Parts: sequence; structure tokens; C-alpha cells
Amino acid sequence: MSRRKKSHQSHGTPNRPRLWGKHAVSAALDNPDRKVLRAWATREAAGFMQFPKDVAVTLADVADLGRLVPHDAPHQGVVIEVEPLEDAWLDDLLNTAPDKAILLVLDQVTDPHNVGAILRSAAAFGAIGIVTQDRHSPPESGVIAKAASGALERMPWVRVVNLARALEEIAEAGFWRIGLTGDAEMDLKDALGPQRVALVLGAEGAGLRPNTREHCDALARLPMTDAVESLNVSNAAAVALYAASIA
Amino acid sequence: MSRRKKSHQSHGTPNRPRLWGKHAVSAALDNPDRKVLRAWATREAAGFMQFPKDVAVTLADVADLGRLVPHDAPHQGVVIEVEPLEDAWLDDLLNTAPDKAILLVLDQVTDPHNVGAILRSAAAFGAIGIVTQDRHSPPESGVIAKAASGALERMPWVRVVNLARALEEIAEAGFWRIGLTGDAEMDLKDALGPQRVALVLGAEGAGLRPNTREHCDALARLPMTDAVESLNVSNAAAVALYAASIA
Repeated sequence: MSRRKKSHQSHGTPNRPRLWGKHAVSAALDNPDRKVLRAWATREAAGFMQFPKDVAVTLADVADLGRLVPHDAPHQGVVIEVEPLEDAWLDDLLNTAPDKAILLVLDQVTDPHNVGAILRSAAAFGAIGIVTQDRHSPPESGVIAKAASGALERMPWVRVVNLARALEEIAEAGFWRIGLTGDAEMDLKDALGPQRVALVLGAEGAGLRPNTREHCDALARLPMTDAVESLNVSNAAAVALYAASIA
Repeated sequence: MSRRKKSHQSHGTPNRPRLWGKHAVSAALDNPDRKVLRAWATREAAGFMQFPKDVAVTLADVADLGRLVPHDAPHQGVVIEVEPLEDAWLDDLLNTAPDKAILLVLDQVTDPHNVGAILRSAAAFGAIGIVTQDRHSPPESGVIAKAASGALERMPWVRVVNLARALEEIAEAGFWRIGLTGDAEMDLKDALGPQRVALVLGAEGAGLRPNTREHCDALARLPMTDAVESLNVSNAAAVALYAASIA
């Protein structure tokens, strides 16, 4: 057991996550709302990364950096330790939304690779933010930041205690709430229009919880063959965001 | 070093990959072209999996199964060792393609999670197959099979020696070859029509190689904001497949 413990040494904590990879770290350094506590970099990476003067940078070799992050994490020569960002507030997000806006709501999507890729796609297709339920969403982490490729710093992320209550507020703000589910009859593109829309996605397998479905204005599906039961959730989110962005 | 070696014990080889997870294993068992060599399952999983009579099944507990697969692999109680599938042939694929067909061509996309998710999306949106370059694509593996969620067994996968030569054959078969690249001016949906189409995607970061770009009939981009440089490649593939399927 001691061997196992040793290999699971600290790679950052939820209160002090470590971020790695050029895009994730550059975006964090560029984010005025991000507090960077420490940094490690290879001599090469230190040459091209723009570290602010007030961040202490420790030069390290590739192997040393490898020990600061989970096994096989593609750190690309740079690791930073940071404070988590302040959560965005749902009220702020809804009050400042433009007339045509896309909001993404995730019901118990927990895999950090997927959540990171979803943040990236949400930024790519101009969503105003993502909303998750606090107890069932992953904390900020290096895996999310790397998969988000900078979007963790830029995409407002609201964590709510009660997703159903949040969906009520979202409706009150004039958003049409579309739940994505394979058993729906309506094609997503027929459910979309030029209005504010909230796309609600559930976890793979489990799908949307009944109480989440009940808080949607429409249920819709992506036009898929029956060769597979479902898409990877980040791929489903990307397609839904694209479809909403061109509606 | 010996500790490291020990933790990297055999989890299958390229010639005898191990597959795990309910969807991946069920699909392999259902595939008449898949030779299954051995199987391990928990008593519970053995109860609901449909193992053919000629496959020897070893009952095992969860911890034993965990040692047969990479660390943290979500085996869901079932692991099989198999022979890789025979490659599909490009000629066969092109000769049997319907008038409206989508083919996916991957230029040096190597990450097995992404390739697996791409197979899954390709099946979901009715692509006729994927084409990769043999030297720069991952071998069949449990990671691909799990991410493909059954689609590894159902989606024809052509591995070619020379991707440029393959793109010439694809054009001769009447496919319009669209290279996806962020620096293109044309929106993907304007490049699509109701004809046979080959969607050509490169690896993240590197993108399409010059010789691959030269073998495309059009270059097109997804309509993205500039908040991120690019999408995750499996997300980009999913969006492109969706756009082509509704064109």
C-alpha cells in the first residue's frame, strides 16, 4: 500500500489546483481574475511563456515537472499552482445576456476531460456560460484546464445548489430550455430559433434526471442513426452548440 | 525502475488487444468478424453478458479485472482478449458507397480517446468509414474500443500507407474532399452539398499537412468565435459529421 500512496503524491488540491500545458497556462497568466501562486518551467518554456514579474518561477527539468502533475499529463514544460476562480453568478449571467444567447446546462456530467472539452466548445461557439450543479460537477483541475485549452479562464461557469431552481430562473430570463435526449421525437434544429436558448445535457448512460426533464420547455434529439446508442457527451455538446449557433 | 516495470504489466498487446466495458465487449461478441480469444468477468457481469459457447470465460473479482487492464480503466466487470479486426479496403468501401455518402479521413490523429470518440460519432452520423495513415494512427486497443462504445466493431476502418494516394482514389470515386482548417475562408456548410463528401481532419496543433491540403478540393472552417484557437479534434469531427449529414 505504501507504494501506491507514494505514486499518488500531491498534484495540487481542489483549493490549490495545478494547471499545465502551454494554452492552459498562458490563458491563466492572461486572466486578471486568476491568482497564480507558483510556477515551474523548463528553461525553454520559461523563454516563451510570459510570466508576470510577481510570479516566482522555478526552473525545472522535464522529469521534475512530471512529478508535479498526474502520471503522463502532457505538461509541455510548464506547471503553475493557482487559486480556483470565483464562481460566476447566475443572476449576473442572465442579466447581461444579449437577445440571442446560448447557455449550456450540464446535469451531473462529472468527467473532467469531457467538462474541459465542453468549456472549449462553449467558448468556440459563443455560449455565454455553463451551469452545473455544485455537488455533481468536478472541481477546477489541471485536467479540465488542459482539455479546455484556455476556455476555463474565459467561459463563465456557474455552480448552483439546485439545478431545477436554476432552470426556473433561466426560464424567467426568457431562455427556451431544450433538453437533449435520445428518446425525444423532435429534431434539435426544429426546436431551435433565433431566441435565447438553454441547452440541457445529461451524463452519458444516465441521461437527464426526471426532475431536470420536467424543467425543460422542449425535449429534442440529435439526428443520429441507430448504430450507436449515444454520442460522447462532449461531442453531443459540440454538435448542439453548433446547431444553436447557426439557428 | 523495477517498480515502474511491475506496474506496467501486460494489458494486452497490439496483436492481442484487450477490450473492456459493457458496450465495447457486447459489440465485439456480436461481431461475427471478431475473434475473441479469452474472457474474464465478474459473476454479475457474466450473468448479463451474452458470451458465445466457444469462448472460455474466467470468473474474476473486480480487483483481478483491474490488473488485466490499464490503471483506472472503467472495465465494468468484463474484459476480453481478442484478435485485431482485418482492415477494411479502400476499394471495397468506395465501390459500395451510396450516392450520398460521408467518408472521414484523419491526417495523423493519434490519441486513442479521440479516435475512439470519432469512430462513435462517425457511426452516429452515418459515415461509411474512416481512413487513416497506417504509420500515424493508433493500433486497436481497449481505450479506442471503450471510447468508441461499440463503433469499433461496426465502422469500417481503412489504414493506408500513403494518405495522398488514398485521397486521389477517393476523388476518382466521386467524393468532394473538404479539408477542415481554421485558416480557411469558406464556412463548412457552404462547402457541403448533397453529394459524396470526404471530410479531412488533421491533428490538433499541427493541423493538416501541406501535402494533405493540396489533395483537398476545398478548405473550409467551422463557424467559431476567436475565444479559442480550435476545438478538440473529436468535437470538430462530430460537428463536421453532423453538418455533412444534414446538408
